[in-house]
Order: sequence, then C-alpha cells, then structure tokens
Amino acid sequence: MIRIGILGYGNLGKGVESAIKQNPDMELAAVFTRRNPEDLKIRMENVPVLNTDSLLDMKDKIDVLILCGGSATDLPKQTPEYAKYFNVVDSFDTHAKIPEHFEAVDAMARENHTTAMISVGWDPGMFSLNRLYGNVILPEGKDYTFWGKGVSQGHSDAIRRIEGVKDAKQYTIPVEEALEAVRSGSNPELTTRQKHIRECFVVAEDGADKEKIEETIKTMPNYFADYDTTVHFISEEELKAEHGGIPHGGFVLRSGVTGMEKENKHIIEYSLKLDSNPEFTASVIVAYARATYRMNQEGMTGCKTVFDVPPAYLSPLSGAELRKNLL
Amino acid sequence: MIRIGILGYGNLGKGVESAIKQNPDMELAAVFTRRNPEDLKIRMENVPVLNTDSLLDMKDKIDVLILCGGSATDLPKQTPEYAKYFNVVDSFDTHAKIPEHFEAVDAMARENHTTAMISVGWDPGMFSLNRLYGNVILPEGKDYTFWGKGVSQGHSDAIRRIEGVKDAKQYTIPVEEALEAVRSGSNPELTTRQKHIRECFVVAEDGADKEKIEETIKTMPNYFADYDTTVHFISEEELKAEHGGIPHGGFVLRSGVTGMEKENKHIIEYSLKLDSNPEFTASVIVAYARATYRMNQEGMTGCKTVFDVPPAYLSPLSGAELRKNLL
Repeated sequence: MIRIGILGYGNLGKGVESAIKQNPDMELAAVFTRRNPEDLKIRMENVPVLNTDSLLDMKDKIDVLILCGGSATDLPKQTPEYAKYFNVVDSFDTHAKIPEHFEAVDAMARENHTTAMISVGWDPGMFSLNRLYGNVILPEGKDYTFWGKGVSQGHSDAIRRIEGVKDAKQYTIPVEEALEAVRSGSNPELTTRQKHIRECFVVAEDGADKEKIEETIKTMPNYFADYDTTVHFISEEELKAEHGGIPHGGFVLRSGVTGMEKENKHIIEYSLKLDSNPEFTASVIVAYARATYRMNQEGMTGCKTVFDVPPAYLSPLSGAELRKNLL
Repeated sequence: MIRIGILGYGNLGKGVESAIKQNPDMELAAVFTRRNPEDLKIRMENVPVLNTDSLLDMKDKIDVLILCGGSATDLPKQTPEYAKYFNVVDSFDTHAKIPEHFEAVDAMARENHTTAMISVGWDPGMFSLNRLYGNVILPEGKDYTFWGKGVSQGHSDAIRRIEGVKDAKQYTIPVEEALEAVRSGSNPELTTRQKHIRECFVVAEDGADKEKIEETIKTMPNYFADYDTTVHFISEEELKAEHGGIPHGGFVLRSGVTGMEKENKHIIEYSLKLDSNPEFTASVIVAYARATYRMNQEGMTGCKTVFDVPPAYLSPLSGAELRKNLL
C-alpha cells in the first residue's frame, strides 16, 4: 500500500480523498490542515486529521504528500519546504513561473533524495503531454489549445470583486467555428477573441446599477476586454440551482504535415469533458503520486514533471499485464 | 546527429525517410533492401542503398535501425535477429502476439546491451498510450476504441482474393451514433456491428458475377459478416483517381466517474485524422528512435514499448526548454 498524506482540504484535497478510494493500492494516511483539526470533518472514516505542525511527526508514515494549496501563495513556499522531508506532488499551474518553481523544488529534492512531482493535473499536465507528443510526432505543424466549456475560478472572482455584485460564475467557451477551422487542417491564425467567448452569470445586490456592472465586466483589461463577453443577471437561487457545479474541459490539437513535399495533413486532437474540474485534477495527481513513489524507490530523485514519467509507472498493473491488455 | 538505418523500403520505409527530413538532429545513414540495391531508387540524395547482407558491416555507422517490414512474417524474425547488433525500432502490430514478441526481443537485447523498441505507431502506439493514461486517471470507467475513417489493408486484400475481383479498397468507418453515445457518458455496450461499418469499392473483372462477389464479401467470416457492409462496383480509373490515398485515423475514449458517490462523469477523447497512415506511423517511429538512442546511451537496455518511455526523451529540446514552452 502506498500511504498518501493530503495537505489542504479544499476542493482539490477532497478530490484526492475520493480518488484514493478508487485506487486499491493506496491508502489515506492523514489529512493536514492549517485550521484547528477539530473543526474539520472529512468524509473517510478512521483517518486522522492533524494540524500542519505535526507533519514532521508523520514523516515515516507517509510515502507521498499531496499538496493541495493554491499556486499564488501556498505552493511556491510549501513544495520546496516539504520536498525536504517528503516525496511530494503539487498542481502548480502558473505556467510562466514553472521554471523558477522547478529550480527551487529541484534543489531541495536533490539534496534530500526525495522525488517531487510538480504541475500535475490537466493543464499543466495532460494537456502539456499532448502538446509534447503532438510536437515530436509532427515537428512541422501548429499547436492549438482551447479551454472549456468550463468555470474559470479566476474570472468568477474578478466579477465578484466589482461593486454591486453579490455572486457570479463565469464560463469560458471555445468558439465552435474556430475549432472546426483547426480540424480542417487549414492552420488558421486565431486571435484571442476568435478562440473563446466568455459568458457571465451575475447576482446583483439589491438596487445595484446593472448597466454599470455589465460595462465594468466587459471592459475589464486582461480578463474580459479582449473577448466577446455576454452578461446575464440572474437570481441567487438560480445561480445555486443551475451553476453550482465546477465543470471544465478543453481541447489540444496539433495540426501538421508529412511527406517529401509536405503533401499530407494530419490532425491530432485530445479533449476533456469534465463534470468536476478538481476531482479530475485530483485523479491525475493520484496516478502521478503512484509514479512518484515508485521513481523514488528506484532512486530517481529530484524535481520531475509529467514529461519525465514513463507511463507504465502510473499504473498498478505490471509491465506484462499492460502489454497484454492495453498495448 | 542520430544516424538512422532503414530496413525495407515500402510505404513505411518511405515514410521514415521523409520523417527524418523533418528532424534536424537525425540523418539517414543507409537504406537496406532484400532486393538488388541497384534496382532501388530512393528519394534522398547521397544515401547508400545496400543489400541486407551488408547490414553488419554498417554496425558502427548506425545508431538506430528502423525495421519497416510486416508483422506477419518479417518482424517476428528480424527484430530479435537485429536486436543482437543494433538498437532497433519496429511497428509490430499483431496485438495478440505482442507478449511473445516482447519476450523474444527482450532476451536478445538484454544479452547484447541494445535497446529495442517494439510496437511503435498509432495502434499499437499512441492509442495504447491513451488507453493507459485513461485507465490510470479514471480507474472506474470504460475504454472505447474506434478506427477510421480509413483504408484497411487487410480487408482490401481479402476482397482482392475473391474470384472475379481485379482490385479493391475497403474503408472502415466508425458509426457516428455510437461515438455520440460514448461521448454522452452513458457507457453503452456496443456490438461489433454498432461500432463500425465497412464500405468497399470493387473493380470487377470483365464478365464477373457481381452479385456473387457482393454476397461473398458480405458473408466473409471475421472480415465482413459481423458488420453492415456496403459494396460499390466502380471502374479501375475511378478507383485510382478517388481511392488512391491511404488515409486512416480513429478515436480512443475513456468514460469514467469520480467522487465519493461516483457522481461526476468525465470523458477523455483522443483522435487522429490522417491523410497518410504509413507516414504518420513513420513519424511516431522516428520520434521513438530518438528516445531509443538516448535510453541506450543511458544504459536502459532490453525491449521497451511506448509505456516505458519518459515523454521528454522523444523531443530534441532540453528539459528546461520543454518545461518553459510546452508544460
């Protein structure tokens, strides 16, 4: 049994808990929280809930510690810190800062002979893998990544910070015509506006100026100004009833050519349609936790990403079983 | 530069030749043929064409030998035989016989400290990888593989063997309704007939009994009897003009659930749309030849499959470049 620790019990931590239930070679050793452990009720039975202060006491009872905090402030500190004592997996997803995060984690993991897997999930994660496979198979080609339909937490938060907004959900939606253009092999150049639309469901405070809210959303730099954005004002009840989920997904396409005269076109497409973004991310993480443990057992220490993991290490099946059943 | 040898200059060998042109870190060292080398004209200039008899003389001039023969009779012999002297890559695609092929090749490669990559291409190959990734992420779920629209060489050959048939092309086509049912997350049980249809374009000999040919095709066990099959009789000119290509493709889907109550559905879909089946297969093979060379350099010897290859080994870019640009 691979003994997993969870640090942080938000949506992602809960997703890891339920994913462990689906993997018979894994067990949840403990959940760690910065809050008072007595205030936290988890769903699995007979699993200790502990304060982060006691993490080091559990060093010998945990094979892999899964870090379920956020990329903005938690992980840049936590991953190097805990890579000192544990094999760790995180879902660090600030793409631009991955190189510096890697360096910080790698130094610590190498020095302490641990294995630290960073940026695991679907983007970064499975989407990255598909970009890589697409690029190596079709070196002459173009990459396309589309996101959605799904809830963007960052964009929803940005709307919630507007004066007069009580609550909000924002969906990122790929433009079907753009997807079809890519699938046709025409290698279109697509602007931000041509690739995605943004749909917002907003609950306004009583007496708020809805016109002004809509204007503020649609002109918000970086978040909405470069997109075709629609805003719907709805009741709090409707938001809860119709927009309570956290679905997401997207598409990675590689469009390329082969042949002595580059005469043949090829399209590789990978897509995800997810009812629960955090649970799917957690499911990817748990598979990579297995690989992390095994790589550490075999002396493969330091910081790793999905690019470094032989796929067979993700599965509980033996090499012979994999070749027989899945190859 | 990674020096590649090609053994066998059919469609696949030609595809490897053109794929090497697209990979600046590789060069074609020689093409080997069982025919008289003087009768074989290849498309790249200044590359020696040699008889297979001189393969061993080129041992020190080739880093990876790509075996472009067929799975029925060539590869079961060639791959173990040449793994004795060379790092090799093959596209052995008789799924049921992969375990025994692996064992034979592994013994030879281990003994001689070579690296032998078998069953590389898209199925087995990229489709296998997607089945594996899907299974480890969503352990509670169902796999679906659809092939097409594309030309099946084996089925076309089977038609050509019928009395009165001059030439033929057979297309395997996935049933759109079946694909949609899988994408809906309903986890349907699908029969052979529900998943694919078979469309045949046949050139009959003058005076042949077309009704009998059609009947023979539609009732042919294993090949056609279990499918809805349509047969079109066309002229030789039309066959050449409209059905001269070797397109193929297909879909791998994993449909699974997550959550404490398995309440959330997820669909992972990977698809290929290929103008040229052999050129795409060759492009996958060439990327894995790079990995084969590197793994051998690092002492990772024996028989390997796509399941054993860390994705980063496929790319000419460094780990840092990959993390910066593709993660």
